[in-house]
Amino acid sequence: MLYEINEKAIKLENEGKKIIKLNIGDPDLETPHEIVEAAYEAMKKGKTKYASSLGEKSLREKLASIHGVSADNVIITPGSKWGIFSVMYSLLKDGGNVIIPTPYWTAYELTAKSLGAETRFLKTEFDSNWKIEPEKLEALADHNTRTIILNNPNNPTSKVVDGKTLKAIVQIANDKKISIIADEVYSDISFVETKSISDYGDNHVVIKSFSKAFTMTGWRIGYIIAKKELVEKIMKLNQITFTNVPVFIQEAALKALELRQEIVERIREEYQKRANLACEVLSKTEMEFSRPDAPFYLFPKYTGLDSERFAFDLLDKGVAVAPGTAFGNYREHFRISLTAPREEIETGLKKICEALE
Amino acid sequence: MLYEINEKAIKLENEGKKIIKLNIGDPDLETPHEIVEAAYEAMKKGKTKYASSLGEKSLREKLASIHGVSADNVIITPGSKWGIFSVMYSLLKDGGNVIIPTPYWTAYELTAKSLGAETRFLKTEFDSNWKIEPEKLEALADHNTRTIILNNPNNPTSKVVDGKTLKAIVQIANDKKISIIADEVYSDISFVETKSISDYGDNHVVIKSFSKAFTMTGWRIGYIIAKKELVEKIMKLNQITFTNVPVFIQEAALKALELRQEIVERIREEYQKRANLACEVLSKTEMEFSRPDAPFYLFPKYTGLDSERFAFDLLDKGVAVAPGTAFGNYREHFRISLTAPREEIETGLKKICEALE
Repeated sequence: MLYEINEKAIKLENEGKKIIKLNIGDPDLETPHEIVEAAYEAMKKGKTKYASSLGEKSLREKLASIHGVSADNVIITPGSKWGIFSVMYSLLKDGGNVIIPTPYWTAYELTAKSLGAETRFLKTEFDSNWKIEPEKLEALADHNTRTIILNNPNNPTSKVVDGKTLKAIVQIANDKKISIIADEVYSDISFVETKSISDYGDNHVVIKSFSKAFTMTGWRIGYIIAKKELVEKIMKLNQITFTNVPVFIQEAALKALELRQEIVERIREEYQKRANLACEVLSKTEMEFSRPDAPFYLFPKYTGLDSERFAFDLLDKGVAVAPGTAFGNYREHFRISLTAPREEIETGLKKICEALE
Repeated sequence: MLYEINEKAIKLENEGKKIIKLNIGDPDLETPHEIVEAAYEAMKKGKTKYASSLGEKSLREKLASIHGVSADNVIITPGSKWGIFSVMYSLLKDGGNVIIPTPYWTAYELTAKSLGAETRFLKTEFDSNWKIEPEKLEALADHNTRTIILNNPNNPTSKVVDGKTLKAIVQIANDKKISIIADEVYSDISFVETKSISDYGDNHVVIKSFSKAFTMTGWRIGYIIAKKELVEKIMKLNQITFTNVPVFIQEAALKALELRQEIVERIREEYQKRANLACEVLSKTEMEFSRPDAPFYLFPKYTGLDSERFAFDLLDKGVAVAPGTAFGNYREHFRISLTAPREEIETGLKKICEALE
């Protein structure tokens, strides 16, 4: 459903219509120019050759120091999606099941299906503030469960898992010898303190990306933090699939890390403003929603809504959003991405409110 | 064995030793500067966002016109390896076997193993000029055969499959409803006329790359030519793995195609000179070899040689080559990559000859 809406949005744009795209998580902001320059400098220096399937040593060491791990625990990937795919491929290609709390990002299920793995969904609800219930998780897991995917902060709810719940989830996983894949791509720009799964021992896997914190979506660079044995397995998969992320892109990412504090603060501040604006508008309506703990999304509920129909109708009025059904059994919800300029968000929200009147 | 030799070569270099690296196919030449500038211009224009998992329309259309197919038959990949992996994933993930003529590029076997597919090797020999025998191919194929991998021109022999043999292979594949994966990454810079599998109907798959013809190895960009249905399957795999090749890299590739004739001729000419030089030196020795039809490799035979031991001993003398066992059951052969400057090749060949005296 995500792809259908996006395709229709692009089609309408090609026909000359103005579409406010609040449907996907691709920020309107530009990649900071220092990052572009770093890539160019590296290209000119001839950093255009085959390279290590683990990633560049300098970049892995820098990331290791940030995360308090060894460089042996870090491997560079072409975006966080490859992080998810490669870890799931390693854990699930010989069968087993995966537990996915809902609402969830579409790629998790599609990847599990592609690998022929069974998916078990753990529903969380707006009414209980999207809390994962450890008892339900425990009941779902069995001896064939190979992994639990924890998207923290969550897309589409933008909620962060609290420390107590996280501890309980880890306990269950450890007891049952299950590796958690923690997709933490939004955590660097969270509005609230966000614990990483790496704070709870080294049995689990962290997936990260440069896309969100540094506005580098189309550069396709992310990384995995995992045990050395898993890192080496993934290196072997990298060797037979894409070889390496271009070194000049890795140099650009290294520059991004050097400017980290400044860039991340600027981006977080901008999204905080957008989130405040959106909450202010939505709070005056009949929509129910939880305040986001992180960029980029709001996932409001409107009782009785058929969100698929709503999303298509709204598109004809010039605004694209994602229907709740794209994230599981959430027909009354829809997702608003705050990845457009503030004035567009304002206009978009106005049209959304009008459409629901 | 390829990786062990390369790791040891890098280790010796890090210790300050000069190593002439004739072991891998990464050209010493630089990416033409116009290509670098095109990437930079695209970055500055903000072509750093998420994009289509099929690849950019402009690039696909240009490639389609070059190959005489429709843009629907072209999909952009992060290097030819992803071409191989994604097609094998589509054809083999539910089981079956793959036929691989030997000597072969290591990645084919590793990919088949990773996917749990059975590999069936079809041996070709120096003594019969590396000819694939269609009768042997026919005997190996059965109703579980999903694909045949045809590396044409071949790595490591640099031989091109003649038209008559190619026709016979296609006939067998068509009769048995098997898709051939033709890895044609060296064909643009062949020294002799090289037929593409796409000249023999649209049942088969062509894998191509920008790496060799444009010295863009580390940029990680290639493409697949296939039936629309397979292209769409691979698009779905791309969507859950790496999303898209960075658009600025696709723009660089488009620039490469614009300058195609000039760049390809220059590169072919350089490799022809290197090949002539190497053949001249080797012909004065007891080594047996076939003249290369294409860049980058020579695969000489020295009767009684233990090529693994030879490769390690030679490395201590400052020259890296790849032992024949890395490509199948070819202990008396080794592979020389002509991907170093001519003076280094000359010195390297001299040391090889001395070591075999």
